[in-house]
Amino acid sequence: MKRPYKKADLPVSDIRRFLEPGPVVLVSSHYKGKNNIMTMGWHTVLEFSPSLIGCMITAANHSFGMIRQSGECVINIPTADMIGTIIGIGNTHGTRVNKFRKFGLTAEPAATVKAPRIKECYANFECRLADRKMLDDYNFFILEVLKAQAATYPRYPKTVHYRGNGVFMISGKHVAFPEKFKRGNL
Amino acid sequence: MKRPYKKADLPVSDIRRFLEPGPVVLVSSHYKGKNNIMTMGWHTVLEFSPSLIGCMITAANHSFGMIRQSGECVINIPTADMIGTIIGIGNTHGTRVNKFRKFGLTAEPAATVKAPRIKECYANFECRLADRKMLDDYNFFILEVLKAQAATYPRYPKTVHYRGNGVFMISGKHVAFPEKFKRGNL
Repeated sequence: MKRPYKKADLPVSDIRRFLEPGPVVLVSSHYKGKNNIMTMGWHTVLEFSPSLIGCMITAANHSFGMIRQSGECVINIPTADMIGTIIGIGNTHGTRVNKFRKFGLTAEPAATVKAPRIKECYANFECRLADRKMLDDYNFFILEVLKAQAATYPRYPKTVHYRGNGVFMISGKHVAFPEKFKRGNL
Repeated sequence: MKRPYKKADLPVSDIRRFLEPGPVVLVSSHYKGKNNIMTMGWHTVLEFSPSLIGCMITAANHSFGMIRQSGECVINIPTADMIGTIIGIGNTHGTRVNKFRKFGLTAEPAATVKAPRIKECYANFECRLADRKMLDDYNFFILEVLKAQAATYPRYPKTVHYRGNGVFMISGKHVAFPEKFKRGNL
Protein backbone atom coordinates (compact mmCIF):
# COMPACT_ATOMS: atom_id res chain seq x y z
CA MET A 1 0.00 0.00 0.00
CA LYS A 2 1.45 3.35 -0.96
CA ARG A 3 1.97 6.06 1.62
CA PRO A 4 -0.55 8.90 1.52
CA TYR A 5 0.54 12.04 -0.30
CA LYS A 6 1.38 15.10 1.76
CA LYS A 7 -0.58 17.90 0.11
CA ALA A 8 -0.58 21.68 0.11
CA ASP A 9 -3.04 24.25 -1.20
CA LEU A 10 -2.18 25.94 -4.47
CA PRO A 11 -3.71 29.07 -6.02
CA VAL A 12 -6.76 28.05 -8.06
CA SER A 13 -5.29 29.96 -11.01
CA ASP A 14 -2.40 27.43 -11.04
CA ILE A 15 -4.37 24.26 -11.71
CA ARG A 16 -3.37 24.32 -15.40
CA ARG A 17 -0.03 22.84 -14.27
CA PHE A 18 -1.85 19.56 -13.67
CA LEU A 19 -4.80 19.71 -16.05
CA GLU A 20 -3.40 21.20 -19.24
CA PRO A 21 -1.09 18.22 -19.98
CA GLY A 22 -4.31 16.23 -20.49
CA PRO A 23 -4.43 13.45 -17.86
CA VAL A 24 -7.38 11.18 -17.23
CA VAL A 25 -9.10 12.49 -14.09
CA LEU A 26 -11.48 10.99 -11.56
CA VAL A 27 -14.55 13.11 -10.87
CA SER A 28 -16.19 12.60 -7.49
CA SER A 29 -19.69 13.79 -6.72
CA HIS A 30 -22.30 13.73 -3.95
CA TYR A 31 -26.08 13.86 -4.19
CA LYS A 32 -28.84 12.80 -1.80
CA GLY A 33 -26.48 11.15 0.65
CA LYS A 34 -24.51 9.13 -1.90
CA ASN A 35 -21.02 9.50 -3.32
CA ASN A 36 -19.95 8.51 -6.80
CA ILE A 37 -16.82 8.57 -8.97
CA MET A 38 -16.34 8.57 -12.72
CA THR A 39 -13.32 8.46 -15.02
CA MET A 40 -13.08 11.40 -17.44
CA GLY A 41 -10.74 12.41 -20.25
CA TRP A 42 -12.63 15.15 -22.09
CA HIS A 43 -11.72 18.34 -20.25
CA THR A 44 -9.90 21.61 -20.80
CA VAL A 45 -8.77 24.64 -18.86
CA LEU A 46 -10.98 27.61 -19.83
CA GLU A 47 -9.71 30.55 -17.76
CA PHE A 48 -7.11 31.40 -15.11
CA SER A 49 -9.19 33.82 -13.04
CA PRO A 50 -11.87 32.90 -12.25
CA SER A 51 -10.36 29.45 -12.46
CA LEU A 52 -12.59 27.68 -14.98
CA ILE A 53 -12.56 24.12 -16.30
CA GLY A 54 -14.79 22.82 -19.08
CA CYS A 55 -15.63 19.14 -19.31
CA MET A 56 -17.91 16.92 -21.34
CA ILE A 57 -19.69 14.16 -19.43
CA THR A 58 -21.90 11.71 -21.30
CA ALA A 59 -25.47 11.95 -20.02
CA ALA A 60 -25.56 8.15 -19.68
CA ASN A 61 -23.13 8.44 -16.78
CA HIS A 62 -24.77 8.31 -13.37
CA SER A 63 -22.41 11.14 -12.37
CA PHE A 64 -23.94 13.42 -15.01
CA GLY A 65 -27.19 13.76 -13.10
CA MET A 66 -25.48 13.93 -9.71
CA ILE A 67 -23.27 16.84 -10.75
CA ARG A 68 -26.07 18.57 -12.60
CA GLN A 69 -28.41 18.30 -9.62
CA SER A 70 -25.93 19.10 -6.87
CA GLY A 71 -24.01 21.69 -8.89
CA GLU A 72 -20.74 20.42 -7.43
CA CYS A 73 -17.92 17.95 -7.92
CA VAL A 74 -14.25 17.38 -7.21
CA ILE A 75 -11.74 16.79 -10.00
CA ASN A 76 -9.07 14.42 -8.73
CA ILE A 77 -5.84 13.64 -10.56
CA PRO A 78 -4.82 9.98 -10.24
CA THR A 79 -1.30 8.76 -10.94
CA ALA A 80 -0.05 5.88 -13.07
CA ASP A 81 0.11 3.44 -10.16
CA MET A 82 -3.71 3.74 -10.02
CA ILE A 83 -4.30 2.66 -13.62
CA GLY A 84 -6.22 -0.46 -12.57
CA THR A 85 -8.53 1.70 -10.48
CA ILE A 86 -8.94 4.22 -13.32
CA ILE A 87 -10.04 1.49 -15.72
CA GLY A 88 -12.20 -0.24 -13.14
CA ILE A 89 -14.10 2.94 -12.26
CA GLY A 90 -14.60 3.71 -15.93
CA ASN A 91 -16.18 0.31 -16.41
CA THR A 92 -18.47 0.23 -13.37
CA HIS A 93 -21.88 1.85 -13.18
CA GLY A 94 -22.48 4.06 -10.17
CA THR A 95 -26.07 3.20 -9.40
CA ARG A 96 -25.13 -0.36 -8.52
CA VAL A 97 -22.00 -0.07 -6.41
CA ASN A 98 -20.23 2.16 -3.94
CA LYS A 99 -17.08 2.85 -5.95
CA PHE A 100 -15.13 4.20 -2.99
CA ARG A 101 -15.59 0.88 -1.19
CA LYS A 102 -15.20 -1.31 -4.27
CA PHE A 103 -11.90 0.29 -5.25
CA GLY A 104 -10.52 0.89 -1.76
CA LEU A 105 -10.54 4.67 -2.05
CA THR A 106 -10.97 7.16 0.78
CA ALA A 107 -13.73 9.79 0.57
CA GLU A 108 -12.17 12.75 2.33
CA PRO A 109 -14.43 15.70 3.20
CA ALA A 110 -13.86 18.70 0.96
CA ALA A 111 -13.68 22.24 2.33
CA THR A 112 -16.07 24.04 -0.03
CA VAL A 113 -18.38 21.41 -1.55
CA LYS A 114 -20.24 18.32 -0.36
CA ALA A 115 -18.62 16.14 -3.02
CA PRO A 116 -15.71 14.27 -1.41
CA ARG A 117 -12.06 14.46 -2.37
CA ILE A 118 -10.35 11.19 -3.29
CA LYS A 119 -7.54 11.07 -0.78
CA GLU A 120 -5.37 8.66 -2.81
CA CYS A 121 -5.16 11.06 -5.79
CA TYR A 122 -2.21 13.38 -6.36
CA ALA A 123 -4.31 16.55 -6.64
CA ASN A 124 -7.89 17.58 -5.83
CA PHE A 125 -9.79 20.53 -7.27
CA GLU A 126 -13.08 21.38 -5.57
CA CYS A 127 -15.53 22.74 -8.15
CA ARG A 128 -18.97 24.27 -8.44
CA LEU A 129 -20.99 24.28 -11.62
CA ALA A 130 -20.59 27.87 -12.83
CA ASP A 131 -22.56 27.88 -16.09
CA ARG A 132 -25.22 25.47 -17.34
CA LYS A 133 -25.60 27.07 -20.75
CA MET A 134 -23.76 24.27 -22.58
CA LEU A 135 -25.38 21.36 -20.76
CA ASP A 136 -28.42 20.75 -22.94
CA ASP A 137 -26.67 20.89 -26.30
CA TYR A 138 -23.25 19.43 -25.47
CA ASN A 139 -23.34 17.84 -21.98
CA PHE A 140 -20.55 20.34 -21.31
CA PHE A 141 -20.04 21.53 -17.73
CA ILE A 142 -18.33 24.85 -17.03
CA LEU A 143 -16.86 24.47 -13.56
CA GLU A 144 -15.24 27.03 -11.28
CA VAL A 145 -12.43 25.74 -9.08
CA LEU A 146 -13.06 26.98 -5.54
CA LYS A 147 -10.13 25.29 -3.81
CA ALA A 148 -7.14 23.34 -5.08
CA GLN A 149 -4.56 21.15 -3.40
CA ALA A 150 -1.79 18.97 -4.74
CA ALA A 151 0.90 16.67 -3.40
CA THR A 152 4.15 18.43 -2.57
CA TYR A 153 6.19 15.49 -3.87
CA PRO A 154 6.99 14.29 -6.51
CA ARG A 155 7.12 17.54 -8.44
CA TYR A 156 5.96 15.92 -11.67
CA PRO A 157 3.60 13.00 -11.11
CA LYS A 158 3.37 10.13 -13.59
CA THR A 159 -0.07 10.65 -15.09
CA VAL A 160 -2.24 8.55 -17.39
CA HIS A 161 -3.52 9.85 -20.74
CA TYR A 162 -6.16 7.97 -22.71
CA ARG A 163 -6.03 7.33 -26.46
CA GLY A 164 -9.11 5.13 -26.86
CA ASN A 165 -9.19 1.38 -27.64
CA GLY A 166 -7.86 0.54 -24.20
CA VAL A 167 -4.52 2.27 -24.86
CA PHE A 168 -3.00 4.75 -22.42
CA MET A 169 0.02 7.00 -22.70
CA ILE A 170 2.00 7.38 -19.48
CA SER A 171 3.56 10.81 -18.98
CA GLY A 172 7.27 10.90 -19.72
CA LYS A 173 10.16 13.21 -18.94
CA HIS A 174 9.91 16.97 -18.39
CA VAL A 175 11.87 19.66 -20.16
CA ALA A 176 11.97 23.37 -19.30
CA PHE A 177 12.71 26.34 -21.55
CA PRO A 178 11.46 29.37 -19.61
CA GLU A 179 14.20 31.51 -21.14
CA LYS A 180 12.62 31.09 -24.57
CA PHE A 181 9.30 32.61 -23.49
CA LYS A 182 8.28 36.23 -23.38
CA ARG A 183 7.43 37.13 -19.82
CA GLY A 184 3.66 37.41 -20.30
CA ASN A 185 3.47 34.16 -22.24
CA LEU A 186 4.64 31.70 -19.59
CA MET B 1 16.07 17.83 -41.86
CA LYS B 2 13.53 15.13 -41.04
CA ARG B 3 11.82 13.14 -43.77
CA PRO B 4 8.21 14.09 -44.45
CA TYR B 5 5.57 11.90 -42.82
CA LYS B 6 3.59 9.56 -45.00
CA LYS B 7 -0.04 10.21 -44.02
CA ALA B 8 -3.38 8.49 -44.44
CA ASP B 9 -6.94 9.66 -43.83
CA LEU B 10 -8.64 8.49 -40.67
CA PRO B 11 -12.32 8.60 -39.74
CA VAL B 12 -13.08 11.99 -38.15
CA SER B 13 -14.65 10.12 -35.23
CA ASP B 14 -11.17 8.72 -34.43
CA ILE B 15 -9.32 11.97 -33.79
CA ARG B 16 -9.59 11.43 -30.01
CA ARG B 17 -6.64 9.03 -30.38
CA PHE B 18 -4.41 12.06 -30.92
CA LEU B 19 -6.24 14.86 -29.13
CA GLU B 20 -7.50 13.29 -25.92
CA PRO B 21 -4.00 12.67 -24.48
CA GLY B 22 -3.70 16.48 -24.32
CA PRO B 23 -0.84 17.55 -26.61
CA VAL B 24 0.01 21.11 -27.50
CA VAL B 25 -1.35 21.72 -31.01
CA LEU B 26 -0.61 24.24 -33.74
CA VAL B 27 -3.70 25.94 -35.16
CA SER B 28 -3.38 27.25 -38.70
CA SER B 29 -5.81 29.75 -40.19
CA HIS B 30 -6.38 31.77 -43.34
CA TYR B 31 -8.17 35.10 -43.77
CA LYS B 32 -8.02 37.76 -46.46
CA GLY B 33 -5.11 36.16 -48.28
CA LYS B 34 -2.92 35.61 -45.23
CA ASN B 35 -1.99 32.48 -43.28
CA ASN B 36 -1.25 32.36 -39.58
CA ILE B 37 -0.32 29.79 -36.92
CA MET B 38 -0.77 29.75 -33.17
CA THR B 39 0.23 27.38 -30.39
CA MET B 40 -2.68 26.09 -28.29
CA GLY B 41 -3.03 23.89 -25.25
CA TRP B 42 -6.60 24.51 -24.06
CA HIS B 43 -8.72 22.07 -26.03
CA THR B 44 -10.93 19.02 -25.54
CA VAL B 45 -12.79 16.45 -27.57
CA LEU B 46 -16.55 17.18 -27.31
CA GLU B 47 -18.24 14.51 -29.43
CA PHE B 48 -17.42 11.53 -31.67
CA SER B 49 -20.11 12.05 -34.32
CA PRO B 50 -20.32 14.75 -35.46
CA SER B 51 -16.63 15.01 -34.62
CA LEU B 52 -16.46 18.05 -32.35
CA ILE B 53 -13.54 19.77 -30.67
CA GLY B 54 -13.81 22.64 -28.19
CA CYS B 55 -10.95 25.06 -27.72
CA MET B 56 -10.30 28.29 -25.90
CA ILE B 57 -8.30 30.93 -27.77
CA THR B 58 -7.42 34.19 -26.06
CA ALA B 59 -8.95 37.10 -27.95
CA ALA B 60 -5.55 38.87 -27.90
CA ASN B 61 -4.27 36.27 -30.35
CA HIS B 62 -4.27 37.42 -33.96
CA SER B 63 -5.59 33.95 -34.84
CA PHE B 64 -8.73 34.54 -32.76
CA GLY B 65 -10.10 37.08 -35.23
CA MET B 66 -8.93 35.12 -38.26
CA ILE B 67 -10.74 31.95 -37.17
CA ARG B 68 -13.81 33.87 -36.02
CA GLN B 69 -14.06 35.73 -39.32
CA SER B 70 -13.21 32.87 -41.67
CA GLY B 71 -15.03 30.22 -39.63
CA GLU B 72 -12.25 27.74 -40.37
CA CYS B 73 -8.93 26.41 -39.15
CA VAL B 74 -6.72 23.34 -39.15
CA ILE B 75 -5.60 21.68 -35.93
CA ASN B 76 -2.13 20.24 -36.47
CA ILE B 77 -0.35 17.93 -34.03
CA PRO B 78 3.37 18.64 -33.79
CA THR B 79 5.86 16.16 -32.37
CA ALA B 80 8.57 16.57 -29.75
CA ASP B 81 11.31 17.23 -32.33
CA MET B 82 9.43 20.47 -33.16
CA ILE B 83 9.50 21.86 -29.61
CA GLY B 84 11.63 24.86 -30.63
CA THR B 85 9.06 25.70 -33.31
CA ILE B 86 6.18 25.23 -30.87
CA ILE B 87 7.71 27.68 -28.41
CA GLY B 88 8.76 30.10 -31.13
CA ILE B 89 5.28 30.26 -32.64
CA GLY B 90 3.73 30.76 -29.22
CA ASN B 91 5.99 33.74 -28.65
CA THR B 92 5.63 35.48 -32.03
CA HIS B 93 2.74 37.75 -32.94
CA GLY B 94 1.05 36.97 -36.25
CA THR B 95 0.40 40.48 -37.52
CA ARG B 96 4.11 41.14 -37.85
CA VAL B 97 5.55 38.00 -39.40
CA ASN B 98 4.76 35.15 -41.75
CA LYS B 99 5.14 32.28 -39.32
CA PHE B 100 5.31 29.62 -42.02
CA ARG B 101 8.37 31.33 -43.51
CA LYS B 102 9.94 32.30 -40.19
CA PHE B 103 9.77 28.76 -38.84
CA GLY B 104 10.46 26.89 -42.08
CA LEU B 105 7.04 25.23 -42.21
CA THR B 106 5.13 24.20 -45.33
CA ALA B 107 1.57 25.48 -45.86
CA GLU B 108 -0.08 22.58 -47.63
CA PRO B 109 -3.51 23.14 -49.20
CA ALA B 110 -6.32 21.53 -47.23
CA ALA B 111 -9.14 19.61 -48.91
CA THR B 112 -12.17 21.17 -47.20
CA VAL B 113 -11.09 24.57 -45.83
CA LYS B 114 -8.96 27.49 -46.97
CA ALA B 115 -6.79 27.32 -43.86
CA PRO B 116 -3.60 25.42 -44.75
CA ARG B 117 -2.36 22.20 -43.21
CA ILE B 118 1.12 22.26 -41.67
CA LYS B 119 2.88 19.55 -43.62
CA GLU B 120 5.59 18.93 -41.00
CA CYS B 121 3.04 17.99 -38.32
CA TYR B 122 2.15 14.40 -37.49
CA ALA B 123 -1.61 14.85 -37.91
CA ASN B 124 -3.93 17.46 -39.44
CA PHE B 125 -7.60 17.98 -38.65
CA GLU B 126 -9.47 20.32 -40.98
CA CYS B 127 -12.19 22.14 -39.03
CA ARG B 128 -15.06 24.53 -39.48
CA LEU B 129 -16.51 26.68 -36.72
CA ALA B 130 -19.72 24.82 -35.84
CA ASP B 131 -21.13 26.92 -33.00
CA ARG B 132 -20.35 30.51 -31.98
CA LYS B 133 -22.51 30.48 -28.87
CA MET B 134 -19.56 30.31 -26.47
CA LEU B 135 -17.37 32.85 -28.22
CA ASP B 136 -18.51 36.06 -26.55
CA ASP B 137 -18.46 34.80 -22.97
CA TYR B 138 -15.57 32.34 -23.04
CA ASN B 139 -13.59 32.76 -26.30
CA PHE B 140 -14.49 29.10 -26.75
CA PHE B 141 -14.70 27.73 -30.29
CA ILE B 142 -16.78 24.64 -31.03
CA LEU B 143 -15.22 23.13 -34.14
CA GLU B 144 -16.39 20.30 -36.35
CA VAL B 145 -13.66 18.15 -37.89
CA LEU B 146 -14.42 17.77 -41.60
CA LYS B 147 -11.37 15.76 -42.61
CA ALA B 148 -8.57 14.12 -40.65
CA GLN B 149 -5.24 12.63 -41.63
CA ALA B 150 -2.33 11.31 -39.61
CA ALA B 151 1.08 9.82 -40.21
CA THR B 152 1.06 6.07 -40.65
CA TYR B 153 4.32 5.72 -38.71
CA PRO B 154 5.29 5.85 -35.87
CA ARG B 155 2.13 4.50 -34.31
CA TYR B 156 2.51 6.59 -31.16
CA PRO B 157 4.18 9.93 -31.81
CA LYS B 158 6.20 11.69 -29.11
CA THR B 159 4.00 14.66 -28.28
CA VAL B 160 4.53 17.76 -26.18
CA HIS B 161 2.25 18.68 -23.26
CA TYR B 162 2.44 22.08 -21.59
CA ARG B 163 2.41 22.65 -17.82
CA GLY B 164 2.97 26.42 -17.73
CA ASN B 165 6.12 28.27 -16.57
CA GLY B 166 8.03 27.10 -19.64
CA VAL B 167 7.82 23.42 -18.59
CA PHE B 168 6.69 20.70 -20.99
CA MET B 169 5.95 17.03 -20.43
CA ILE B 170 7.02 14.76 -23.28
CA SER B 171 4.74 11.78 -23.87
CA GLY B 172 6.14 8.53 -22.52
CA LYS B 173 5.46 4.86 -23.04
CA HIS B 174 2.13 3.32 -24.01
CA VAL B 175 0.29 0.54 -22.23
CA ALA B 176 -2.80 -1.31 -23.46
CA PHE B 177 -5.52 -3.05 -21.43
CA PRO B 178 -8.41 -3.52 -23.88
CA GLU B 179 -9.39 -6.75 -22.14
CA LYS B 180 -10.27 -4.79 -19.01
CA PHE B 181 -12.87 -2.66 -20.78
CA LYS B 182 -16.51 -3.39 -21.43
CA ARG B 183 -17.06 -3.42 -25.18
CA GLY B 184 -19.02 -0.16 -25.38
CA ASN B 185 -16.54 1.69 -23.16
CA LEU B 186 -13.40 1.50 -25.29
